Amino acid sequence: MTIIRENITVREDGTPYPGGWPVISHSVTHNGIVHLCGLTSDADPIGDVAAQTTRVLERVDQLLAAAGTDKSKALTAQVWLSDIGDFHAHNEAWNAWVDHQNPPVRACVEAKLIYPNLLVEIMVTAAL
Amino acid sequence: MTIIRENITVREDGTPYPGGWPVISHSVTHNGIVHLCGLTSDADPIGDVAAQTTRVLERVDQLLAAAGTDKSKALTAQVWLSDIGDFHAHNEAWNAWVDHQNPPVRACVEAKLIYPNLLVEIMVTAAL
Amino acid sequence: MTIIRENITVREDGTPYPGGWPVISHSVTHNGIVHLCGLTSDADPIGDVAAQTTRVLERVDQLLAAAGTDKSKALTAQVWLSDIGDFHAHNEAWNAWVDHQNPPVRACVEAKLIYPNLLVEIMVTAAL
Repeated sequence: MTIIRENITVREDGTPYPGGWPVISHSVTHNGIVHLCGLTSDADPIGDVAAQTTRVLERVDQLLAAAGTDKSKALTAQVWLSDIGDFHAHNEAWNAWVDHQNPPVRACVEAKLIYPNLLVEIMVTAAL
Repeated sequence: MTIIRENITVREDGTPYPGGWPVISHSVTHNGIVHLCGLTSDADPIGDVAAQTTRVLERVDQLLAAAGTDKSKALTAQVWLSDIGDFHAHNEAWNAWVDHQNPPVRACVEAKLIYPNLLVEIMVTAAL
Repeated sequence: MTIIRENITVREDGTPYPGGWPVISHSVTHNGIVHLCGLTSDADPIGDVAAQTTRVLERVDQLLAAAGTDKSKALTAQVWLSDIGDFHAHNEAWNAWVDHQNPPVRACVEAKLIYPNLLVEIMVTAAL
């Protein structure tokens, strides 16, 4: 069964970027399901947890659209907050995005992320 | 392909609960697999990690039954302990529940959860 | 649909090991996808994060081979580092292993693992 991989993090010659950046796909589609990588905000300035959540979920929308689906078909989400005290502020931004009649299952726990200014990371799967 | 979502956390009018509570499904079934949300104990008093684990796994059983399956068809589990020192005590309760001939794959790591008295959260998938 | 479980952590008589060790499968295959458990290094001495990552990924290769597939069909990976400061050192070992044209999606966050000397845990899924 076909596996479609998008936005692979390699240089034009197919080799890894120097400096210890991992080779991953941003999106892998297989058997009617698209799996997204753990996404963080790339905004500058990066902003608070609400702004970061909104930007991460824009990135989710873009990757789902590229795979031929959208958030109404979301199946699962994992959320990592660098400070679980941001839970409610994060959720307000989540609720502004999520399809209220078609939300995914979700788990949300605290975890330190790769940069101190990253406050939220989200990993989503969706059906096609 | 059909997606079945159960126990969506919205009010009767389909809008989010106030106060920053996330809109999620407790169970999403798609293509022969049921995905449960990250579950914590709702017991009062909530008890120690063994009691919490037992209650979480009762909730897993209920959601799997509602989806038309049971723990003998569990595929994966993720476990978050707020104190990894509870690992062995948690496992005793896990072992009292899990089908010894049909256990899922699992990962168990430490993570701070949304309330200080929550000691364990578990997220399960199972085949129908 | 058939579920194949490999390397179940029970004694010969089918009961759990004493001491609070969890009953899990190391590999569960269902509907064309193999799910591996969260894997850590079993090397002695266990070594630094690069050595541990290399050993974990050898274990991934072994379990994928036993399931009839290989890393070129990897779909998803979750990585937990006990110190997120090991991110780049971990990635160098990851990049030495991963198929540069066929990488999985991935999330990598910090989490305390069950022993202080365990620096990395990885959980992988792959298509058959």
